[in-house]
Amino acid sequence: MSRWEPDARGRLERAALELYSERGFEQTTAAQIAERAGLSERTFFRYYADKREVLFGGAQLLEGVFVDTLAAVPASVGPIDAMALTLEAVAEFFADRHEFARRRQEVIAANVELQERELIKLASLTAALATTLRGRGVSEAVASLAAEVGVAVFKVGFERWVRAGSGSLASFLREALAELRVVVSP
Amino acid sequence: MSRWEPDARGRLERAALELYSERGFEQTTAAQIAERAGLSERTFFRYYADKREVLFGGAQLLEGVFVDTLAAVPASVGPIDAMALTLEAVAEFFADRHEFARRRQEVIAANVELQERELIKLASLTAALATTLRGRGVSEAVASLAAEVGVAVFKVGFERWVRAGSGSLASFLREALAELRVVVSP
Repeated sequence: MSRWEPDARGRLERAALELYSERGFEQTTAAQIAERAGLSERTFFRYYADKREVLFGGAQLLEGVFVDTLAAVPASVGPIDAMALTLEAVAEFFADRHEFARRRQEVIAANVELQERELIKLASLTAALATTLRGRGVSEAVASLAAEVGVAVFKVGFERWVRAGSGSLASFLREALAELRVVVSP
Repeated sequence: MSRWEPDARGRLERAALELYSERGFEQTTAAQIAERAGLSERTFFRYYADKREVLFGGAQLLEGVFVDTLAAVPASVGPIDAMALTLEAVAEFFADRHEFARRRQEVIAANVELQERELIKLASLTAALATTLRGRGVSEAVASLAAEVGVAVFKVGFERWVRAGSGSLASFLREALAELRVVVSP
């Protein structure tokens, strides 16, 4: 019979990131994460398929938020404005996740395999956004470009938000998009 | 004593791409490539460290062309115009490489591991361009955004050039940049 463990997922996540920071991702085991969280290894595997999923388990959820939001923007809104509205919704997804995001980025920056996994995540996101834009009647070329731009703004804004000690992700994403517009304007 | 083999690199490259298309990348060996090219396996390994390098051996060269060109653009030219000039020079790099590029894309599209390697190549290129822009005195944020935009334009323009039966890469890259400007303009 499984005991009810209050906030087991959150405790495992915090324990995992602590250990990844202290010992390195490769040197940490699921058993150690569970122990640090005061939970059993079995509980760990009830929430995560493996230790990498603590870092990437949210990727599909994030992609879902991106795609669902973008698809729901009225068709009359142009691709880049639709992307801007989508980024606002995505920023909500990260409310209260600043500390997690900061630690996660640190762990990923220290491990080439995790960096590759992150690239794959963002490429998948870009492809999903381009498909969604085409579903909104946007031409193939414009859909690809707008998706690339949206993800580029997300990446750059997100990194600056993570590095900054304070501020909302939404404001960093808005700023990055505004800068991009200035950069690209003839 | 090694015999002089006329155009050994070109013959190996063409043989490799034929075999990757016919049998799949994974099912092809270096020995088979050498045989198809009418060369010895030893000759293959004189040119390529492994069969993957036939597809990615040019990556460092390409990044070099990007970086050297961008660094050489007069400092008075803004980041996105400098990127446009860089893309023109990069297009030269692919003159007479259309058939190679087309076959290469097909092989990569059929293999997840190769797709990941391609993502890593483009991420490395983006980072190198951002560093080069910062070296030109461009602020960190603008450098990152302009590098992302430059690589996005390269990707989208390149893909369309590969799919199209004719035309110069330069014209596809110019068109993609022009479209991006329209997409992003308020």
